[in-house]
Parts: sequence; structure tokens; C-alpha cells
Amino acid sequence: MTAHASLERALGYTFQSAALLEQALTHRSHSGRHNERLEFLGDAVLNFVVAALLFKRFARLDEGDLSRLRANLVKQAALADIASRLTLSNYLRLGEGELKSGGFRRPSILADALEAIFGAIYLDGGFAAAEDVISRLYEPVLRNVDPQTLGKDPKTLLQELLQGRKLGLPVYNVIATHGAAHNQTFEVECFIAELDIRVGAGGASRRAAEQSAAIQAIAAVESKAPQKGGRKSKARKSAQLSLPVAVAQESK
Amino acid sequence: MTAHASLERALGYTFQSAALLEQALTHRSHSGRHNERLEFLGDAVLNFVVAALLFKRFARLDEGDLSRLRANLVKQAALADIASRLTLSNYLRLGEGELKSGGFRRPSILADALEAIFGAIYLDGGFAAAEDVISRLYEPVLRNVDPQTLGKDPKTLLQELLQGRKLGLPVYNVIATHGAAHNQTFEVECFIAELDIRVGAGGASRRAAEQSAAIQAIAAVESKAPQKGGRKSKARKSAQLSLPVAVAQESK
Repeated sequence: MTAHASLERALGYTFQSAALLEQALTHRSHSGRHNERLEFLGDAVLNFVVAALLFKRFARLDEGDLSRLRANLVKQAALADIASRLTLSNYLRLGEGELKSGGFRRPSILADALEAIFGAIYLDGGFAAAEDVISRLYEPVLRNVDPQTLGKDPKTLLQELLQGRKLGLPVYNVIATHGAAHNQTFEVECFIAELDIRVGAGGASRRAAEQSAAIQAIAAVESKAPQKGGRKSKARKSAQLSLPVAVAQESK
Repeated sequence: MTAHASLERALGYTFQSAALLEQALTHRSHSGRHNERLEFLGDAVLNFVVAALLFKRFARLDEGDLSRLRANLVKQAALADIASRLTLSNYLRLGEGELKSGGFRRPSILADALEAIFGAIYLDGGFAAAEDVISRLYEPVLRNVDPQTLGKDPKTLLQELLQGRKLGLPVYNVIATHGAAHNQTFEVECFIAELDIRVGAGGASRRAAEQSAAIQAIAAVESKAPQKGGRKSKARKSAQLSLPVAVAQESK
């Protein structure tokens, strides 16, 4: 299994069965012994291990917040990030078609293969081995999680920002629509009366345009009414930090 | 912990921390130290353990079938069944209001408490303890699983029954609707041309009426064109056996 020695080093786990790792790396486009059953198993062990990590790390979060955090940590984009850190694309076995169309870069293929690897480790080394590898890979991710904002969309963040300053809710209005029925774009404005903020943004759906407008509005609130003091300035920082995550979700 | 000794016997697990079991049995209507975070954790360990049991037991099922089976084994009704076997309602701690309205019989409350118990066992005794208890409780359930039919709805089962006999697809028609817009009932007929079968059923939605009609149609196909021979008669038996499950789902 020298071919996979560097991957095993990155995972921090050496397989007893080279065939199991091979199968975890095999996309269904490549051959019959592919990774989809392993992915089913790996998804389940991943969800559990991340749930347990969050449960223990955030002792005061309720189950709704724990669910939101977990959903964000195990979603395709998060898994594809970890797969990239492992340079997993170098090891994938894809069929001709997928190879030519750049399948080894596709987030879904990378995420699925990573889950399949978790399943393979569980079969190969038992639960403790899988828990160990998953915990290690998620350690840097968990260190940077902001439990108050991760996975919240911009409209929610804007609302919480305004509530934290005892200000009224923002109002969203559709200003214009362009294009034919099935190919419309929407222009939306977000209006915050008490701060006299009025910002606009466009999007392929009303919801997408509103979320973009909310991002603009958060920036406007931050610059027009910067908040001072401990607790509140932490909330402000959180909202800023979380935007890239929230936007990435929206474009899914 | 004598108060819970009989529950612990039924579970086959004795808690080191009586407080953890107590918390798992506490509904949020009762007090602040309730079971919702434990339920989050228990749901995750349950999903994983059942996934692993199915993976190992059904080596030839693909991940789609495995997912369907698991969804059915961990759904509220299945968990409430297990909770009843454990007479869990005798041990629940509910608030006044829930007590008076019979909350101790509510499937959702029973299912949530059972998941919370799984989470508590994991915290109290580690993964192996939780795996052991869940495996034992699911053993009789798994023994009776028909992987071909569990969790499939009547329309799907009828279609597969007809395909197995090389017959064409059934046709569903709405014959009549009754009542006002937000309180309509639908009468639907299911027509199988090659067998000259025409059966009708009603329901609160078009889909519900179609599923009821499909149940009638399966019975009609069975009696009009009983199938002989090994493989096919097994398929017939499966379809019959699965109906209670399918109907129970529909009424959810």
C-alpha cells in the first residue's frame, strides 16, 4: 500500500486492509466495487462523532444550535475543504468521463470519498479509530467555530445585529424585476428606518437578492453605528466574521 | 437508583450516574434540566449504530436501500414501539400540563426520551455500551425487516408488483372532490387495464386517496392473479406483509 502511504500519513491512520481504502477512493464511474455503501456508513459515523464533539465542547448550547452547527460542519463544502487539505483528489479513482470533466475537483465527489474513508476506517479499525481520525481532522475547524453565527444567513444576522442595538426590523422591498418569467433577476432594497440606511442588491431569486441586500446592510450598520463595549463588540465581530460562510451557503 | 432498577433491567444497562438517566427521562415541560441536548446526542448515536447494523446485515443492499431502511427503523413510530416495550411512560417526568393531557402516551415524547436515554448511556458508559443496548433493542426488529418492502409506500409496492408480472403501470384518476377548498376530500380510482381492475378510495388529499386506492388494487391483483413459484410468490408475500407499515406512514 505504498501508493497510499502519504494519504495514510495525512489521515494519521494506517489501514490493515488496503482493499478497503482502495474501495473508499473508488467513484462509481470507475468500477463496480465503488464507495457508495462506505459513504453511507461514513456519513453516519461522521455525524455522530461531530455531534459528540459539539455536545462536549459547547455545554451551554441548546439542541437547535447544536444541530445548526453540525449541519454546517458536515455539509459538502466543509467536507470538500478537509478533502483538499488531504489532497484527496490525487488518490481518487474515477471513470474516463469523470476524469475528463475534472471530476477529481468536484466538491461532491471529494466529500463523498472523504465520508467513505471514514466508513472504511470504522470497518478496518473500529469506532475508536474513526473517532480519532475525525476528531483530529475537525480540531482546527472547531477551534474557529463561532457558535453564535456559523450557519446563520445574512438576513438572520442582520436581524440579530439590530435587535442587539434595540433597533426595529429591516424592511425588504422588491424595486424591480428583469427578464422573462423563468429567467428573472430581482432588485431588492433593504431599508432600516432608524438608521436611515437604504441599500440595494440583485439576485436570481427574491430570497437571494434579499440576502445580498442584508450583507450590504450589515456593512452599513457597522460603519454608521459602530458599537462599543465588551459584549456588543463581540457580537459585531461575529457578524462580520460569519459573512463568507453565510454567502457561500446562499449560492449553493 | 432503585426507582429505575426495572428500567435499567429492561435496557440491560446500569447507569453509573443516576442523574444522567434522570435527565434523559425529563421532558422540557418538567424542569430546566431536561433531555433535549441528550436527545440530540442520542439521535446521532442511534443513527450511526443502526446504519452499521444494516450495513453488516445486508451486504448486498445499495446505499439508497440502506437509507430507506434506516429512516424507517429510527422514525418516531418505531422508537415509540421500542419505548412501549420498555414501559418507558412509567418513568417519564413531565410538567403538569403534559401530564394532564396524557403526554406520557405521546409517541413524540416517548421517542425523544428513548433517544435521550441512548445519549445518556453513551456519556455514562462510552460508545460500546450504547452500541450494545441499541443492538439488543433492535435485534427483534431487524429479524423481521423485509429489505425489499419496508418503508415503501403502497403506490410503489403496486408498481413493483405489476412490473414483476410484466404488466403495465396503473392509472390513477380523480373521480370526485367534496367539500370546501381548505377541507376537501378526494375520491380516486386506480385502474389496471390488463387485469380489468378498477378500485376506488377516498382521502383528505389526492395523494392519500391514491395510496388508499393502491392498497385496494394490491389486494385485487393478489386475488385475481395469484402468482405461483418460488421467487415470485416471495415478492407477493412481501407486498402483503408490508402494507400495515406503509399505511401507518401515510397517515403521519
